[in-house]
Amino acid sequence: MSTQAVAFHPVAGLPEFDRRSNLAAEILLALRAADRALMSGDVLVVAQKIVSKCEGRWVSLASVEPAPEAIEIARRTGKDPRFVETVLRESREVVRVARNVLITRHRSGFVMANAGIDRSNVGPASDPDRVLLLPEDPDRSARQLRDALRIATGADVGVIVSDSFGRPWRYGVVNVALGVAGPPPLRDLRGTTDRAGRVMETTEVAWADAVAAGAALAMGEGAEGVPVVRVTGLDWTPSDASGQTLIRAIDEDLFR
Amino acid sequence: MSTQAVAFHPVAGLPEFDRRSNLAAEILLALRAADRALMSGDVLVVAQKIVSKCEGRWVSLASVEPAPEAIEIARRTGKDPRFVETVLRESREVVRVARNVLITRHRSGFVMANAGIDRSNVGPASDPDRVLLLPEDPDRSARQLRDALRIATGADVGVIVSDSFGRPWRYGVVNVALGVAGPPPLRDLRGTTDRAGRVMETTEVAWADAVAAGAALAMGEGAEGVPVVRVTGLDWTPSDASGQTLIRAIDEDLFR
Repeated sequence: MSTQAVAFHPVAGLPEFDRRSNLAAEILLALRAADRALMSGDVLVVAQKIVSKCEGRWVSLASVEPAPEAIEIARRTGKDPRFVETVLRESREVVRVARNVLITRHRSGFVMANAGIDRSNVGPASDPDRVLLLPEDPDRSARQLRDALRIATGADVGVIVSDSFGRPWRYGVVNVALGVAGPPPLRDLRGTTDRAGRVMETTEVAWADAVAAGAALAMGEGAEGVPVVRVTGLDWTPSDASGQTLIRAIDEDLFR
Repeated sequence: MSTQAVAFHPVAGLPEFDRRSNLAAEILLALRAADRALMSGDVLVVAQKIVSKCEGRWVSLASVEPAPEAIEIARRTGKDPRFVETVLRESREVVRVARNVLITRHRSGFVMANAGIDRSNVGPASDPDRVLLLPEDPDRSARQLRDALRIATGADVGVIVSDSFGRPWRYGVVNVALGVAGPPPLRDLRGTTDRAGRVMETTEVAWADAVAAGAALAMGEGAEGVPVVRVTGLDWTPSDASGQTLIRAIDEDLFR
């Protein structure tokens, strides 16, 4: 059971990231400057935004020619047709369209607003037409960072690439796990018994999503945000399961 | 900005709760036994289940007579008709019905499975027909606990009454905030600017939900779960907003 505290430590002092950045090296430098070291069992939660920047996932809207579907959806949403076209190119299907709302199924399976494409806090103020896509494969990004950290330090840390999602029936965004390397994304409680010895009905806990959600509290907000959080005190055994295991199968989706 | 760690401390050593329990006193006793004190600014996340137990929110299914609608939904879901009847009595509307799935809008506004009624980990194994409803008014429960703790200790702590929710497009449950007293449930980022000086598109962060989600990591699971978590290192200013402010207005619900 949990007897120790689970702590979310912001990794302060990181630079701006771009395609030349070595993410693992920058994280280790920032930790060293703060006299911190990674330990096996730590989990790093990394904002999708900086992973995408390191992977150069920029698109210039000036180069995007919207097709008729994008123009129609732009009319219904009030969004820029070139932005909508970029969202559709990143998506498998459109889930909901309304004023200011475009929810799609991203080609990686995530049902989310705007295919995770963010126009805020991503580029120089002088280039408002540049937008940033999600990482090509967030699980691969997480694995690569985990491997690089293990090679550099010997520590077996978990990595979660996170992004903020809205929810259909609740206001506000919460962080969830897009890519996961190391810890099990889900913990299965099927068959475990409760205090009274009864078999529990609860099935699975979205453990990696809970870690991502908590990390947002240490990431802070807006201009002063910290895009990497080190989480200590978690109890996990390495798993090969990826962040894809968090995505509900389409034939179980009651809200398409 | 966040420079200190946000830490989730399980409050170990709590007893079983029932209608005679004084929740505030039991929490203070458990903290004292562990040589911990509450400080102003701490947030306590309390599992709905123990709040309901303290409020005596039991229903015996043996006393429930299912109406025709419940019998029909029981057939489609494979659930006990008396359980379905109890869910419907706690609900404003049925949102989705499928095999093993009954999602309703609870009369408090929450869209959730089974109106939050849980048959696991709630009663003696000898009485499998006893189920536990959500607290009558989770915000009131949170306020009462906050007030009692302030009177007893002088500390102004936040209280979040949490429960685990499923999500339409992701597997696994995450904790969310049902009742909130003290901290603002939502943090509004509208109008704040990002590092590049651009106005951010992101609107609001579901801060209380993030605190609830992170707390689940320290609550542990199943038989060895800890139903109260003390959260330190959070930065909040008291607010009168309740947990109801997290519930999306029905006229903005695209997934009814």
